[in-house]
Amino acid sequence: MNDTFLKACRGEPTDYTPIWMMRQAGRYLPEYQKVRRGRTFLELCKSPELCVEVTLQPIDILGFDAAILFSDILVPMEAMGLELEFHEGRGPVFPQTVRDRAALDRLIVPDPHESMGFVMETIRLLRKELKVPLIGFAGAPFTCATYLIEGGSSKVFWETKKMMFSAPELFHGLMEKITLCTIDYLKAQAEAGAQALQLFDSWAGILAPCDYETYAFPYVQRIIEALRPAGVPFIYFANNGATLLDYSARSGADVIGLDWRINIGEAIQRVGDKAVQGNIDPFALLLPEDQLRARIQKLLDDASQAKGHIFNLGHGIHQFTPPEQAKIAVDAVHELSRR
Amino acid sequence: MNDTFLKACRGEPTDYTPIWMMRQAGRYLPEYQKVRRGRTFLELCKSPELCVEVTLQPIDILGFDAAILFSDILVPMEAMGLELEFHEGRGPVFPQTVRDRAALDRLIVPDPHESMGFVMETIRLLRKELKVPLIGFAGAPFTCATYLIEGGSSKVFWETKKMMFSAPELFHGLMEKITLCTIDYLKAQAEAGAQALQLFDSWAGILAPCDYETYAFPYVQRIIEALRPAGVPFIYFANNGATLLDYSARSGADVIGLDWRINIGEAIQRVGDKAVQGNIDPFALLLPEDQLRARIQKLLDDASQAKGHIFNLGHGIHQFTPPEQAKIAVDAVHELSRR
Repeated sequence: MNDTFLKACRGEPTDYTPIWMMRQAGRYLPEYQKVRRGRTFLELCKSPELCVEVTLQPIDILGFDAAILFSDILVPMEAMGLELEFHEGRGPVFPQTVRDRAALDRLIVPDPHESMGFVMETIRLLRKELKVPLIGFAGAPFTCATYLIEGGSSKVFWETKKMMFSAPELFHGLMEKITLCTIDYLKAQAEAGAQALQLFDSWAGILAPCDYETYAFPYVQRIIEALRPAGVPFIYFANNGATLLDYSARSGADVIGLDWRINIGEAIQRVGDKAVQGNIDPFALLLPEDQLRARIQKLLDDASQAKGHIFNLGHGIHQFTPPEQAKIAVDAVHELSRR
Repeated sequence: MNDTFLKACRGEPTDYTPIWMMRQAGRYLPEYQKVRRGRTFLELCKSPELCVEVTLQPIDILGFDAAILFSDILVPMEAMGLELEFHEGRGPVFPQTVRDRAALDRLIVPDPHESMGFVMETIRLLRKELKVPLIGFAGAPFTCATYLIEGGSSKVFWETKKMMFSAPELFHGLMEKITLCTIDYLKAQAEAGAQALQLFDSWAGILAPCDYETYAFPYVQRIIEALRPAGVPFIYFANNGATLLDYSARSGADVIGLDWRINIGEAIQRVGDKAVQGNIDPFALLLPEDQLRARIQKLLDDASQAKGHIFNLGHGIHQFTPPEQAKIAVDAVHELSRR
């Protein structure tokens, strides 16, 4: 069992810097494309055997130090009672949005074992196969809320902020329900065998710090607090969150995920005694090998003062990334951090 | 002549905090919609009399302390020899992208008086009408380059970063040509009568600081340096640029534009003796009047240590914003900053 990743999460010494990549089980791998062919994305998410297969692929092929459950942050939103579709090229779509009290009242807080049993089954199966730790995850409430309010992805999040600013009670009511769902969901993942948990706040970065503090942060804190008894390391990733780092550091998370927009050394100074995860620009994987290795060396140097460092991209690996470039990065991190 | 805006740019004392809003001449105003109807966006941009009309509208209707030339950052890109279209709902489109040496070689550095005479004519006409200062502008080279490389707007800027990381000479060649074009264009605007200049770096925030330093910042510095003899205040706005602020402060600009993601007090500490412009979330204009006024008061308080402060939104005003809410903000800034 390779537990380098878990040691780094806990700030314990490691022989080398562990590495995994957000979206490492995904479209950039031809092996994933093969499994995905002929079925919808959601069908794949709900087939434990296939989820196990695609979760294992990047571990076997590229040698990552942690696996992350193959699923989607919107799976529990569907379980709350909303129809969810994934449209090719457009992303997730909720045909029924949540923009009034009636729609909010219709949402349920699901029993994750009943409506998302396929996720727990995937976790149980994975634990039998894996030689590296398994990360479970959920979307942070604010990020999930934006999809329900907008009805899918958004560029400017007009409807979300309109609700925040002109109907705050409705907004907080939605956040409350998503938070309760997320707590139950993550607890179930930990009970099923997830050895670390990550909360993805993909859209936190659209908020001014004062609004993040009011509308998003309290729910993040509650989730992390509620998961403390589970006894697994907790990673909080607020994407585009350079100006939210002081909050992230106080979120209760053991590990602070960093996007690529901030120098990791500066971030480490600001988060104090927390471990950090990140943060090379995913597109920097396109650099020629010598330059990619030099950039990785620089990042490892900049992160040398971290209490713990898990190497990762600053965002998900892009679908057009050649897998061999990802392999160069994995090998470089392992080799250069041993010195 | 109300020169409060120019005084604030220069860090001189003012009786109150001046305010204007990015995209203040635009779709949120019914008066603008009326002028726009029946013609394309580019036709409007190329009609000096109509540009004058829509530039004046927000000054007359809402009482802003500065006017900004009605135009688009991509106008000079068209003048470089590329066909430009604006598609409703999709934004700008360049059917011919710039992704290889041949396409780069076809780009010309235009004489702005010849190919963009309509802009200079608009400026000359506006100066006869305006009782507030007139801001000219251009897109920063990196931001303009993304549109040429991607062929329009982008979510992840794959093609741009691919060129940066795998064909850096080509990328720098493109930046060089855009920089030369931008310098001539801004010089012509200042000669025609623009009393301040703003460089919009809308997409700077997609770059890691180390890449911004290599691929974008040197061109910003060159433009600002080249415009120094024009003797007008220079505003540099790197959108989503919290982690780039130290560069912005060294850019040579007199005023640093701030998006809404950073607390203005923290930003002021980092930019030192520069004036700042910003930075309320454009969507916060939807707040009820008492809360909007309270937020403005807080922002004015937070900005009290600035060498100069020009109140603005942290991004362009959204098309669905009720103009009466913008008016509340203008009046609140004027009233509350006089105390």
